[in-house]
Amino acid sequence: MEHELFVVALGGNALLDPKEKGTTEEQMRSAERTCELLAPLLKPEFHLVITHGNGPQVGNINLQQELASSEVPPLSLDTCVAMSEGSMGHFLQMGMLNVLRRHQYRRYVVTTITQVIVDPQDPAFQKPSKPVGSFYTADQAQKLMAERQWIMKEDSKRGWRRVVPSPKPVKVIQRHMIKTQVLFGDIVICVGGGGVPVMKLPDKTYKAVEAVIDKDLASANLASNIRADCLIILTAVPNVCVHFKTPQEKKLGHVTTKELRKYLEEGHFAEGSMRPKVEAALYHLANEGRRVIITDIESLPRALEGKAGTHIQRYQED
Amino acid sequence: MEHELFVVALGGNALLDPKEKGTTEEQMRSAERTCELLAPLLKPEFHLVITHGNGPQVGNINLQQELASSEVPPLSLDTCVAMSEGSMGHFLQMGMLNVLRRHQYRRYVVTTITQVIVDPQDPAFQKPSKPVGSFYTADQAQKLMAERQWIMKEDSKRGWRRVVPSPKPVKVIQRHMIKTQVLFGDIVICVGGGGVPVMKLPDKTYKAVEAVIDKDLASANLASNIRADCLIILTAVPNVCVHFKTPQEKKLGHVTTKELRKYLEEGHFAEGSMRPKVEAALYHLANEGRRVIITDIESLPRALEGKAGTHIQRYQED
Repeated sequence: MEHELFVVALGGNALLDPKEKGTTEEQMRSAERTCELLAPLLKPEFHLVITHGNGPQVGNINLQQELASSEVPPLSLDTCVAMSEGSMGHFLQMGMLNVLRRHQYRRYVVTTITQVIVDPQDPAFQKPSKPVGSFYTADQAQKLMAERQWIMKEDSKRGWRRVVPSPKPVKVIQRHMIKTQVLFGDIVICVGGGGVPVMKLPDKTYKAVEAVIDKDLASANLASNIRADCLIILTAVPNVCVHFKTPQEKKLGHVTTKELRKYLEEGHFAEGSMRPKVEAALYHLANEGRRVIITDIESLPRALEGKAGTHIQRYQED
Repeated sequence: MEHELFVVALGGNALLDPKEKGTTEEQMRSAERTCELLAPLLKPEFHLVITHGNGPQVGNINLQQELASSEVPPLSLDTCVAMSEGSMGHFLQMGMLNVLRRHQYRRYVVTTITQVIVDPQDPAFQKPSKPVGSFYTADQAQKLMAERQWIMKEDSKRGWRRVVPSPKPVKVIQRHMIKTQVLFGDIVICVGGGGVPVMKLPDKTYKAVEAVIDKDLASANLASNIRADCLIILTAVPNVCVHFKTPQEKKLGHVTTKELRKYLEEGHFAEGSMRPKVEAALYHLANEGRRVIITDIESLPRALEGKAGTHIQRYQED
């Protein structure tokens, strides 16, 4: 039997409904619901890697670090990402175990704390742009910038907020282990929150860095490195659209990289929303990738049959 | 070349010096120092699994959950254990990468979020005994017991504290994946804090449970299941002693399970200290285990040459 290898990137909201508070029970329930919707990919003919965002979760962890800072030293952002990989891995493992047993699939699931190499020369380190954590008053911000060497920016209405660099992923350190494990038939959860950013310094030592890696780009990087047959990026809408939310809105079904790149250059996709997903898809297809699907989790079963979602294939001359 | 498979159980203090506050930098430094002391086991002829305690770390996470509880729902104890597996896995992975490169070993390191099956019928669930988290006043304790269904006990001097069950580990769910990975030459970090306790309910579903598994016993269980050649339990002292801290104190060098069981029954080993380590050693040797060493990390290199530490071998009639 030929096994197809899928990498599926879940949004952070797939595991914490923004309308909910984020209790353990709510997150366990969301994780199990998400795993149930992934059921078509659990069949023995597929190999499956699951990656995920961690926006709301790492936000909560950060807030806890700050609110308890008089008693417990707040840990670095990279450590908070690793903690969210732990908690979310636990939720997904629980949900997945239950779904696997319900469908009588004899497979196991494992979560890997994933480190991702970033380049110290990445221009992102010169202009930190990704907001993280809570909002502060100008006075609090002055203090934090002095005490913690944070870089902070003022948001038009809501106050001051820390910004960190968002460098490009160079390589997932644990890629070989992830590939080995998945080829053994296990379902692997990894690259949570885009992975923990790590730099290799000129003296050859490794150093963790307070930054955030885009989870779709990190997933695309991993998918290329482990030669996935298909990268699925799950988002809030069933299709990538051009002229989104205008009377000319048009859902994209099957597109080539050439067409999609043209739409990207024309500015059809919103920063921080569909744009990074489209960029991740194009990155993967420019790096040995074969197929990318962008859709929402509800459309996934039909998308796997080619009847829903946006399907992107490499333009033959690429 | 014949590869020997070692499981090494680190104490939680190996990664957070009780004299330090627990900043990221301190924990990174402790982790790298610990990994450097493990260097003799990183040679290509050894396969290595590292497990670890998480006492001070999960204590800090718990405290953060409580101090921030007005803003962020506190997550369950099992989730906090998974978070500590994330943070400590990150620290150990960083330290290990640096030590591996410094010694020019071309190996990788991976952390697995580990779930451990416990038995719902375990008598520990009838009498929760393991204290976790902070101390509270009687009034606060009344409120927490009512609101969160916590079981709390009064400590002679320091106030009220939550107690949770400490059930025996039945099986490490991810044992097959850990074995696969380690046989590929990767160093695997797992069973942090004894693992995340999970029950299999009569309806065959899995449910996480707020409990704490003894990390030495969980490590011994894993070591038996993956047929380790040697289990090393690292602690604060170079040897197991009888008549500890009395004029008759005697360090144990090489002992059989029969001798050690006799000492255990005579009450030589302190509850919550050496006793669980001795019990873990005896458990492993009664379950197909071959060799157990109990020592401190500083003595490890000499212990591997048989010149330090307490070495326990199966009594032939066992």
